[in-house]
Formats: sequence, structure tokens, C-alpha cells
Amino acid sequence: MLFEVWAPGARQVEALVDGQPYAMGPDPARAGWWRVDAAAGHGSRYAYRLDGGEPLPDPRSRRQPDGPDGPSAVVDQDAFGWTSPWPGRGLPGAVLYELHVGTFTPEGTFDAAVERLPHLARLGITHVELMPVCPFPGTNGWGYEGVSLWAVHEPYGGPEAMKRFIDAAHCHGLGVVLDVVHNHLGPSGNHLPPFGPYFTDRHHTPWGDAVNLDAPGSDEVRDFLIGGALAWLRDYRLDGLRLDAVHALVDTRALHFLEELSTAVDGLSAALGRPLFLIAESDLNDPRTTAPREAGGLGLHAQWNDDFHHALHTAVTGEAQGYYGDFAAAGPAALAKVLTRGFFHDGTWSSFRGRHHGRPLGPSTVPAHRLLGYAQTHDQVGNRATGDRLTPEQLGTAAALVLTSPFTPMLFMGEEWGAATPWQFFTDHDDPELAAAITRGRRREFAEHGWAEEDVPDPQDPATRNRSCLDWTEPGASGHRELLEWYRALIALRRAEPELASPRLDTVTATAGGRTLRIARGPFRVLVNFSDSPARIPLNTPCDVLLARPACRILPGPAVQLPPRGAAVLRARDAVSAPGTVDG
Amino acid sequence: MLFEVWAPGARQVEALVDGQPYAMGPDPARAGWWRVDAAAGHGSRYAYRLDGGEPLPDPRSRRQPDGPDGPSAVVDQDAFGWTSPWPGRGLPGAVLYELHVGTFTPEGTFDAAVERLPHLARLGITHVELMPVCPFPGTNGWGYEGVSLWAVHEPYGGPEAMKRFIDAAHCHGLGVVLDVVHNHLGPSGNHLPPFGPYFTDRHHTPWGDAVNLDAPGSDEVRDFLIGGALAWLRDYRLDGLRLDAVHALVDTRALHFLEELSTAVDGLSAALGRPLFLIAESDLNDPRTTAPREAGGLGLHAQWNDDFHHALHTAVTGEAQGYYGDFAAAGPAALAKVLTRGFFHDGTWSSFRGRHHGRPLGPSTVPAHRLLGYAQTHDQVGNRATGDRLTPEQLGTAAALVLTSPFTPMLFMGEEWGAATPWQFFTDHDDPELAAAITRGRRREFAEHGWAEEDVPDPQDPATRNRSCLDWTEPGASGHRELLEWYRALIALRRAEPELASPRLDTVTATAGGRTLRIARGPFRVLVNFSDSPARIPLNTPCDVLLARPACRILPGPAVQLPPRGAAVLRARDAVSAPGTVDG
Repeated sequence: MLFEVWAPGARQVEALVDGQPYAMGPDPARAGWWRVDAAAGHGSRYAYRLDGGEPLPDPRSRRQPDGPDGPSAVVDQDAFGWTSPWPGRGLPGAVLYELHVGTFTPEGTFDAAVERLPHLARLGITHVELMPVCPFPGTNGWGYEGVSLWAVHEPYGGPEAMKRFIDAAHCHGLGVVLDVVHNHLGPSGNHLPPFGPYFTDRHHTPWGDAVNLDAPGSDEVRDFLIGGALAWLRDYRLDGLRLDAVHALVDTRALHFLEELSTAVDGLSAALGRPLFLIAESDLNDPRTTAPREAGGLGLHAQWNDDFHHALHTAVTGEAQGYYGDFAAAGPAALAKVLTRGFFHDGTWSSFRGRHHGRPLGPSTVPAHRLLGYAQTHDQVGNRATGDRLTPEQLGTAAALVLTSPFTPMLFMGEEWGAATPWQFFTDHDDPELAAAITRGRRREFAEHGWAEEDVPDPQDPATRNRSCLDWTEPGASGHRELLEWYRALIALRRAEPELASPRLDTVTATAGGRTLRIARGPFRVLVNFSDSPARIPLNTPCDVLLARPACRILPGPAVQLPPRGAAVLRARDAVSAPGTVDG
Repeated sequence: MLFEVWAPGARQVEALVDGQPYAMGPDPARAGWWRVDAAAGHGSRYAYRLDGGEPLPDPRSRRQPDGPDGPSAVVDQDAFGWTSPWPGRGLPGAVLYELHVGTFTPEGTFDAAVERLPHLARLGITHVELMPVCPFPGTNGWGYEGVSLWAVHEPYGGPEAMKRFIDAAHCHGLGVVLDVVHNHLGPSGNHLPPFGPYFTDRHHTPWGDAVNLDAPGSDEVRDFLIGGALAWLRDYRLDGLRLDAVHALVDTRALHFLEELSTAVDGLSAALGRPLFLIAESDLNDPRTTAPREAGGLGLHAQWNDDFHHALHTAVTGEAQGYYGDFAAAGPAALAKVLTRGFFHDGTWSSFRGRHHGRPLGPSTVPAHRLLGYAQTHDQVGNRATGDRLTPEQLGTAAALVLTSPFTPMLFMGEEWGAATPWQFFTDHDDPELAAAITRGRRREFAEHGWAEEDVPDPQDPATRNRSCLDWTEPGASGHRELLEWYRALIALRRAEPELASPRLDTVTATAGGRTLRIARGPFRVLVNFSDSPARIPLNTPCDVLLARPACRILPGPAVQLPPRGAAVLRARDAVSAPGTVDG
């Protein structure tokens, strides 16, 4: 088989395949590429030596059986026997579920996760969104320090186990989305620099030199990332990718990397005849992120909407620290704005950023399914000092808003039963200096916010990862079961009623009053009481209660008496009013 | 009068006005601003002291009578008596003339430049484009190291002299455009940092920390730059601004600084009832730069088109070094592409950049008057080791293409008579370490290209500036007069014939053949022979020669016999063919 590698600065490149050295020759058709034919097959170990140096793993390695520092292994993509049809469902109407393989089960493997797919299928979600799976040194970590961008972390089970998981998900009718990190590599185990100009000092990121998207050699770096994205989608039958922190992809080229990526993914989608989507994590509140390319946008299909999270989080918790400040000050009106206009910061003053931020989303550029809505994510839980989650009571209120919103809802694993386990920041660096720096850095960060050192879990302590694993005895236990039923009922209602999943922001009416919020979407009314006292919320038309938690009472008026922290979904009895004209 | 200054980090601010100290108080309406009322008027000297420190000039100073390190002076904008009407001409149909005040005349002042305005009026240009005039330490310099962005370099004559110059230009029917530098301040005399976060280490530029356009405090920095732009246009009756190196304005905000700037300038234009325009210098070849805001663009009105320059320069000189390489390899076909599509690098491989570059201009997004076309600029002359210009022979050929192009033509001062004086890189730093570094850096840069140290003029030697001054005995002298007449005739023809100034790229036909180029625009034919041998260029319809240099002959066929380095402009006798359908 053909071994190929880009190493434009090398004078001599050798492939070591199953212990045999093969001198590689320059590819006459592709500048900077080296190639050689060698006897090899599925499972063959190989590495490259540049100018007689140490053997290095393949930048495009599909498997690192001994970790990121060891040799690569050949993966025959046709060797896996797919058994289930690929559901191939698009983003409109989807309900996502963010899942970290390493803590979804105590075992922390894809095969163990397969056992829990029936739970997810019964929950009613449509897609699992896997947190990053690329190899990093050590066993445990969130995955954002991956260093082998085309491969699968071996402790999770490697490429074959990931395919088994996806095949099993398909068998349950579930699609799979993967979180990929293009903006940096982890601090340890990054073997790309000797091969070529993968990084540039033209731009700096929080992680050091930026990935080279616009300096000399960047054509090949872009191909490396885009090729990886396409390979993930194609070879693993994924429905989409989540793109980590796209604001850190600094690219001054006239054709932005993300536009080139979305063009390539749309091309693959057309070739496969299946919807494929890209979901950005973006801190920019920039409508261009998800605007179509023909409208001057980057053509990504969706983005995480942290503004909705922050508005929701402050409403249910009362917290006001850091970036929550502006949202807390606005109260439930922040939620009303987000539910009708998408962004809260749409050109408004951001006290956290010390400047104005964002710009308005045009309703034409963004149907709201292009924004993901969530009450929790790995970041919003794990970046808290102790990784504490919302309480079951808070989640009950929040879920009513997330799952009836015009956004694409996403849950964070375990929230559906109000998991009592925290989800903390954990690492497993084997370099002692790096490990100490991580522990020190984490504690210093929170010391600034008044935390005592001993109260902040040590990321390097294995107990930190262990206590972050879901406890699967919980979902069936009292104190959890009832919240799980609430989530199931809300998801089922959303999936049964297209007007609840409608992405049209212009048909949403949201009215904040004191500590309550009243939303009208077509015939539906969603009422929420954030306060610790009962609240009476008027209705302008007779309604039936479809779902409520805790139970609520219809009063003459008509009105609804909502208990403290209560939420209810109602349907107008006279459901002939046109979308966009109703008010609750 | 009211003295106001933004100093968000100061605990105490004092204004020193005509020697009197005044304690300033925080402005209750504007966070971070300080204000005080003090007796003062036109010419009053003042400075600010932050927390009891040294007196500092006003960041928004309109005059620095003793240089950038001295006190500021109050300028009453109503004190100047304008005598001439403001022509207020827009960019379509314009012919620009780039002028450096310090070397346009040996005196290097605005008042001396006024004496030469009759020459410019007779030449036929519509606008003078002034190189930057903001104060910098010392007397001589190109102006890109300005440090007081709202003021006028005192050795040029200061604000009043600049107004006298503009008033005189208006009297000759000429508009004035000013080059402004937003992307960095000079290395010496920058007193902004003590006042506030004008710079950020989030982004780096070739000049160090970037101007803060997106970090905390950036709202005020943007207001500082945009307010300055508006003040220049309004107070000096300018028609437009040239924005230096916009690719170095790094801004990740959803609303880009340049879009905010173009919005503000368009607002002022509407308020004044006059066309105002912004011309970017951009290295991005990005259609967004000049696309309207409604189409997702930045809304700038034009940009310099270096691709046209490079295609033209290589065609007339045969040079192929550095960024000329790809253009030289393409030959006259590069010119044919640029003349019909605007950019040469429109997504093509750039060997100089080691990556693909640019993207295509849609004809709908960019009428070609939004691209400036030129055979020379201060950069393309001054950044050569010895600042040597094109020869009169080369200029004759090039001018025929520039002045009949669909672009907005721009000349560099003196080219119209083939000035024998060079235009070299000169500086006047009074800091000896900085001065030595500049001299060393310049020589090292060119040593890499094989230049002997003694052949590269010392930027700090006053003789370098002196030999860069235009020699006004030349234009009337033989060896120069004839080229000057050629320029005048070409400009007069362009201004008399709207079809020659038409910005429609889709009506241009350009055919490269060997070392010749044949262009058809409506009834006009432009024929150029870049070679040192005569060339026969066929015509498909009988034509009359309007202008030729040297004289050319019509041959049967019909065809034109062009002498070596010859250029001719012809008109088809049967001038009924529709634009866009003719071929010469």
C-alpha cells in the first residue's frame, strides 16, 4: 500500500513499516509530499523518520495503539462491518446530547457506553454529540488537548470501538456528532512541527502559536484539517461536527478557513446524499458565522448559543459573577430577548468584555435551529470550581424552556435525571512539570474568586475523574426518576408538535414579568416561575395544561397559578390563531 | 472652553492651560472621561497630567507647535477663512495624484506646495492624495510614523498651512484626499499608552502590539480613530481618506472597525451633502473590502490595486524579483486578466506568499473605479534600494494603460514628467539608538538581495531626503516636456470620454499576444508594445489614431505598426458597436 506524508522541509524521509525501513521519494505531483509503496495492511505499525531523526507518528494517523508518542497503525476503513442503516438525520428538529466517553460510564469506553444507548433512545434525543476523541497522552482528560487529529483515543477503545458505538447508536435510530478541535493541539505529544509549518507566530492564541491558516504553507495545513473533517464524517458515518472555539481560528485570507470547510462538507453531503452539518462554538455573536455563503456568511450550519445559556442560568440560579453580570442585571427580560432575537449581546455593552459586543441576527439569515440552546454543557459545568451541576429543581424549570425553545436543544449527559455526580476538570499529564503547572494554575484561577485551595479538586488526582463519572444507579432511583420523566415528556412533546420545534424566531412572543416568563409559540404557551413564591400568570385565551412541574392550577381570568420554580406547557383551546399573531 | 480627555485608569487628572493648572473632574455622563472648563482660545497651549506625572500632549491634539513631545495648542476650527468653494467631487471619474508634502518642493511645506498647484491643475488631475501629515519627531520622514493622529506636522506648516493649501487646491478645482494611519503609531513620541488601553497584546503587527480594536476599552479607541477620521474630513474639507494597511487592523468583533468607520463617514457625507470616500490599502485581495455593507462588505469605497501595478511593472521593466515573480511568469496575460477581472491573485497560487491568495471580485460587487490603478506609488518607488523610478520611456507605455484603464488612475508626484530625482527612504529620528537601528535595518534588508552597503542610501543622512525632492526646473526642460504633454493628453482624453473612464470591467476586452497587449473599451482601442522590437497588431475594424507615443503607422489589414515600447489610443471609425461586444 501507498504511504504518503507532507514534509516540505525534509531532505530525506523514511517510512518504517512493520519494522522495515523504506526510503520515500518526493511526489512529483505534489510539492513537499513524500511517498513509498510498502507491504502493509490493516493493523500494520508504521512511523516516519525525517532526515534520519527519531521515528514519528503519521500526522494523519488513524490509530495510535500505544498512545500519541508511539507508532501509527494502518486502519482499513472497509474492514469494519456496519450492520445498521445510517439514520442520516439533519439538524432541524434534532435534540442533541453531549457525552464524554471517558466519564459517561465508570469504564470510560465506547463499549461500555453502548450499554447505555437504550437509555438515550428512550429519552428521545436524536443525536449524541461526542466530546473530542482524539488521542492525548495519559488516559483521562476532557479531550481538548488532543494531538493526533485523525485518530481515536486508545483508552476509549480506539477506532474500531468508536465504529461499534456509532453502529449501535444507528441501530437505536440515533445519529452521532463529534467535537473536533482545529484551533490548537495539546501541550504534550504534538509531533506535527517537525513535519512542516503547521503553526505560525503571526497570530497568538491562549494556547500559544496559532494553527497556520494564512502563512506560507497554509494550503497544506488547511487541507490537513479539512481532510480530517471529511474523513471523520465519511469513515465514521457521523452526521456532523462541533467545531471548538472557532473565534481562535485566526485567518486573514479572503477565503476564510471556515468557509472553505463548510464548502467541502456541503460537497461531501451532496456526494453522500445525506445531510451533514457543522456546529461552531463561537464567542463572537457574529451573524456571519451561520449565514449562508451566498449571503457573505461562513456557511456553518449552527452555533452554540451561550447567551441563551447565560440568560437561563442567571434566571434559575440568581448567580451574577463574571460573564453572568449583564444577564443577571436584565433578569428574565434577557431570556425574553434571546428567545425572540437569538443573541442577547447583539451590539450591546458587555461589561465582562469592557466593550460593545455582537450584532443582531437577521431573521432571514438565521432560522433559530441554527442556534443550540442548553441549560448545561461540559464547559458551563466543568469550568466551575467544583464542577457542580444545576439542582434537579433548577433543571426542571430550565428544561421546560430549553425543550420548548426555537433553538436546537442540547442536554449535557446526566442532566436528564439531575445527576448528583459533579463533572469536574480533570487531566492526566505524565510530564510532572506540566502536571504541577496544571494543578497550580487551576487553583490559582479560583483563588482569585475567593476559593480555598483545598476546596478546588486537583485535576491530576484520579479521584477527580472518578467522581465525575455518571452513576447509573441514579436514573431509576427516586429523587431522579421523576425529573427523567419530565425530560422524556418534554422531548416527546417537542418531537410530536412541529410548532414547538419551529425555528421561526418571528413567531415567538416572550413576556417577562417580575420573576416570571410567558412565552407563546403558535397554540402553545410556556409559563415559568423563577421565584420562590407562587405566581399568577394571566392568559388571554382558555388553555389546557399539557405538562406541568409541579402541578399547577388554572384560575378564572383565565390565568395560571404556578408554584415556586414551576413550569408549565399549555395549549390554547381555540388553536386557530395564526403563528406570530398570538399572545398568551 | 471645555477640556476633555479619556483616561480611564487615572485617579486624578489635571489640565495645564497656558501655564495654569486646573483639576479635572470625572464626566458623569461618560465613564473614564475627565473634564474641566478653563479660560482658553485659539493658540492656547495645554497639556494633561495624570496622577501627578509629567505633562502629556492631548491624544486628540489638533496642533503640536513644538513637536509631538511638547504641549498641545487649541485650534479654533472656525478661525480659518475659507475663500474657495469646496469642489466636493466623488471618486467616479477621478484622477488622483499622490504627493508627499516634505519633498514635493525643496522647502517641504504646504505653502511651497501651493505654488505648484497650477502645474497640477494644468496636468488635469482631480484630487491630490496627501501622504500622512500627522506629527512625528524630527523634520523629515515619509509620515507613516506619526504619533499625534489628529494634528498636522509643524515643519510642514501646521494646521493653518494645510488649510491654506486645501483652500488653494479648491481654488484650482482640485479636491484633496489624506492618507491616515490607524494600524500603528511611530516608534518614538507615542504618548497614548498612559492615557488608556490604546494598544493590546491580543494581536501583533509588524510594529508590535496592535491598536486595540476588540479588547476591553476598545469602544473608546474606535471612537478616537473614527472621530479623528470625521474631524479630518469635516474640518479640512477633505474629499476622502486613504487608509494605510487595513490588513493590519486586527479586529475580531462582529462589527468590524472598518464597517463602523465606513458607516460613520457615509453618515457625515449625507449630513454634509457631499460625496466622501475611503480608499483602503489592502494586501488581502478580498472583495469584502470594497463590497457594500448591505452585501456583507465593509463598505469602503475603493482600494489600491497592487496587482495591476505588479502586472504593469513587470511588463514594462522585465523585473521578476520577490512578489513580481508570478506576474512576470504570466507576462502581458497578467495585465489582460487584471484589466478584465480586477485581481490577478483571485484564489490563485502566490509563490511569494507560499499559499493561495485572494478571491474573485464579482462584477456586481465592484465597479472598477473602486480599484486604484497606478504605475508608481511612494511604496513601489521608495521601497526599492535606491528609490529609482521608472524611466520616461517605461512611464510613457505605462501611462497609456493607467490612464485608459477602468480603474481610478493615480500618479506619483513627478512621474508625469519622468522626474530624474529618486524618491528614497528617509527618516529623521533624534533618538541615536533608533536612528542607528533604522540605518542598519535598511542596509541589512537590501544586503539580503545582494546590495553593497555603500550603495543603499542612509535614511538618516539629510542628503537622502534632499535628493528625493522634486526638481521643478525639470518639467519645462527638454527630455521631460514631451512626456508631460503625453500625460496631459491622456488625462484630457480620459476626462473628455466617459467610455474611457467607465468602471465596467465586463466591457473590457484585453488580448495579450507575445509582448503586446490590445485592449478594446467601447469604440476605443489601446495598443501597447512592451518589446524592444516593432510589433504589428491587427485591428478588426478601421480606426483613427487619437494619441500615440512614439508615432505609429496604420497598415492595411487593418493593423497598427507600433514602434518598440510604443503605445497608441485609437477610435473605431464605425463606432456603433455596443460596449462589451467589440473586439479590436
